[in-house]
Amino acid sequence: MVGLLSKCRTLLPGLSASASRWQRHRSRLYHRAPGRLKPLMLSQLFHPLNFQEDAVAGLESKPGELTCRSQRLMLQAGLIYPASPGCYYYMPWALRAMEKLVRVIDHEMQAIGGQKLSMPALSSADLWRASGRWDVMGQELFRLADRHGQKYCLGPTHEELVTNLIASQGVLSYRQLPLLLYQISRKFRDEPKPRFGLLRSREFYMKDMYTFDSSEEAARRTYNLVCDAYCSILNRLELRFVKVQAAMGNIGGTMSHEFQLPADTGEDRLVACSSCDFSANTETMNPDQRDCPVCKGKLSEMKGIEVGHTFYLGTKYSSVFNASFLTAQNQPTLAEMGCYGLGVTRILAASVEVLSKADAIRWPRLIAPYLVCLIPPKKGSREEMAGALLERLYDSIIESIPLLQGDAVLDDRTHLTIGKRLKDANILGYPYIVVAGKKTLGDPSEFEVWSQNTGEVLFLTKEGVIDLLSKVQVP
Amino acid sequence: MVGLLSKCRTLLPGLSASASRWQRHRSRLYHRAPGRLKPLMLSQLFHPLNFQEDAVAGLESKPGELTCRSQRLMLQAGLIYPASPGCYYYMPWALRAMEKLVRVIDHEMQAIGGQKLSMPALSSADLWRASGRWDVMGQELFRLADRHGQKYCLGPTHEELVTNLIASQGVLSYRQLPLLLYQISRKFRDEPKPRFGLLRSREFYMKDMYTFDSSEEAARRTYNLVCDAYCSILNRLELRFVKVQAAMGNIGGTMSHEFQLPADTGEDRLVACSSCDFSANTETMNPDQRDCPVCKGKLSEMKGIEVGHTFYLGTKYSSVFNASFLTAQNQPTLAEMGCYGLGVTRILAASVEVLSKADAIRWPRLIAPYLVCLIPPKKGSREEMAGALLERLYDSIIESIPLLQGDAVLDDRTHLTIGKRLKDANILGYPYIVVAGKKTLGDPSEFEVWSQNTGEVLFLTKEGVIDLLSKVQVP
Repeated sequence: MVGLLSKCRTLLPGLSASASRWQRHRSRLYHRAPGRLKPLMLSQLFHPLNFQEDAVAGLESKPGELTCRSQRLMLQAGLIYPASPGCYYYMPWALRAMEKLVRVIDHEMQAIGGQKLSMPALSSADLWRASGRWDVMGQELFRLADRHGQKYCLGPTHEELVTNLIASQGVLSYRQLPLLLYQISRKFRDEPKPRFGLLRSREFYMKDMYTFDSSEEAARRTYNLVCDAYCSILNRLELRFVKVQAAMGNIGGTMSHEFQLPADTGEDRLVACSSCDFSANTETMNPDQRDCPVCKGKLSEMKGIEVGHTFYLGTKYSSVFNASFLTAQNQPTLAEMGCYGLGVTRILAASVEVLSKADAIRWPRLIAPYLVCLIPPKKGSREEMAGALLERLYDSIIESIPLLQGDAVLDDRTHLTIGKRLKDANILGYPYIVVAGKKTLGDPSEFEVWSQNTGEVLFLTKEGVIDLLSKVQVP
Repeated sequence: MVGLLSKCRTLLPGLSASASRWQRHRSRLYHRAPGRLKPLMLSQLFHPLNFQEDAVAGLESKPGELTCRSQRLMLQAGLIYPASPGCYYYMPWALRAMEKLVRVIDHEMQAIGGQKLSMPALSSADLWRASGRWDVMGQELFRLADRHGQKYCLGPTHEELVTNLIASQGVLSYRQLPLLLYQISRKFRDEPKPRFGLLRSREFYMKDMYTFDSSEEAARRTYNLVCDAYCSILNRLELRFVKVQAAMGNIGGTMSHEFQLPADTGEDRLVACSSCDFSANTETMNPDQRDCPVCKGKLSEMKGIEVGHTFYLGTKYSSVFNASFLTAQNQPTLAEMGCYGLGVTRILAASVEVLSKADAIRWPRLIAPYLVCLIPPKKGSREEMAGALLERLYDSIIESIPLLQGDAVLDDRTHLTIGKRLKDANILGYPYIVVAGKKTLGDPSEFEVWSQNTGEVLFLTKEGVIDLLSKVQVP
């Protein structure tokens, strides 16, 4: 048997036989393989571009149907592709952005003591009946039965499952609280009218956190802690946002806030007081109210895209499933709960929505699929020689800033003019574009650097480019 | 509006307000927050231990029902918890292992040019009818209808979806091939009898890759490339495995291999020739065959757990959906396809199955939830002073090897004896355990280091421990 086992085992620890065989097979680029310095070539990335708007016009919308900027741009740039209404393929570039966003969220959730787990998508009907939501949720739940006739829904949210989990682990000690559990997973909701691309889809990624505390006071502290972490995430993404008082909907509880990105295409109507702290989703307001309910100040209105929603639940779910803990006096007591949703695919689309130009994507720098694109001169042009200097720059960048290895793309389509490739790069929204042109062959040798998020264009030496890029963050 | 927007924005770039407020709120440990050096305390990790076997005996199995080692150990160690038959909560420790495994797989897939995307879980019935598999798959498919009566299944595999995607992107050029697309996502299969924990569950994580090539010859090269990458992954996990000729099942195609971990509890029967390269799943053999079909040599038998399965598909799916490319001569031609599954949760459970002792988990070092556990002396014991030296060792480890920051746990349950905590650590299977005892107070000060995967116990100075740990890999 030993002979058999060794048949397929390679004997090179660390260095994979596959990689070396593959190198003999053909020369091709890959991401993030350590110690390899070949540039990532744009021509080798699978990325169906449909920059002509008419190529995507018929893809999803019937004539006259409402679409929005992020939906159009993400379809055109090959970031998403529709499979069925509200269900998308996340194409490689979008997935890169999503994975970066997930790292940012993980970091901030773990910084406040959050522990990550993963719950089933198939949620037993019994649990939803126990909470009363099997009926309340109506047609929004995707429902199905297994081969034995047992009924399930596909979880749009997991209050029932997480509370049941905690209840089943034996009684917690007060010393284990607060307990902050979260997951980042695909959720399902049978939207009556899926629309606006990833903004209102039927399958989506959400980060959902559930917290367990020993008292209302402790639970409110935890609630504020999570809200602060949400602020921190949106700040790191450099997004303008507002936190407003919100309705509880079918989740329930006694206090709720939404995190909204102001946008004219937003589906939520918000008000804020010009004199005090008050701000709210108009859902929570008396429709006749014209002034601030706190200080009678003037209310201003705006629209927003909801990206996060927090709920203070009290014992609504812990009482159903008997999720309790022992106090210091050994008294079994129901845990005070909170739940906290953050739309992962929603944030991707909403950022594109609020940051982009009409015909060019802009990303939060931290989560752009690729951070920098390097454009060498056209083949056969007078500046062709500058191409070698640009490749040397590429190598120096990766050597000096190893974090950027998977994040710097060389646009090797040198049969196209610089202008054409610059236009593509502008549409795709790399935060930084570096062009080699006439000045690159000058003395000092300089590169043209576009900072797309600020609109600046600079001429920098090799050292200057590296200095600029060494300040950026990659999550 | 600007006033409103600034309300929640914190003005501290980089440092999150949430983190600092939280620090005032209470002192608690977190994972991987950069620049913080507080030890990760075992008492603060959510990790329901059920080391008493009877605590989990009734959880899943009826008396007399078959269970296996990984299932029992993973339930006892709080790695998984059953939600409904074949559907599990992946608890924080298991999720950490899975995320490490995903990083290993990503690395090897991208090293061969694989590009990662993500496809919907809801798979339209129309696509499955087109391939004929809507009927063929029978009760293994979870099926459901949306609010408009449109039918879907929950994808157990994605040949239909990926081929339809490629067909819909316009005709590919031969220059874009080979194209290797993959995803790592949750899959669904309505197993008739879910069993053995994560080894045969109804929800599971799988890495599935789909490849498109311009000729049969090129497709076979790609096929070998992916098989080599699978060998590389299993080698990096230090798992003994065998690659055998396999049956095509309902996926189809003309060539197929399985990657099997030899194990007595395995559900597959394998044979291998003692004289030549031949090895096979017995499913592919004539049951009367007693000698090797290639060289007539002697066949030996074993059982295995399948962790990977590769298929050379030819044009089975590309012909259905018309996934084609233009040759150098501008001729539209059907792409030659392959598909390649690797069970992510299956590998987790199978590694625990084959590496563990009867009553103690062993992990592949590369993906253990935590790499090292440090055990200070019992409070009030004669060696108590050694605790401070151990904490200093902890700090030095993190300072010298920043990669280990999230991977080193301090077992702060100092009300327990070292022996009791050592026993727990042994059961949990940290690859390395470092104990501070009498010798730590000696000159030279030495720590007791258990290398669990080799069974070695060494006495090492602080520098010796750091030297040992600096050689380990964290993906």
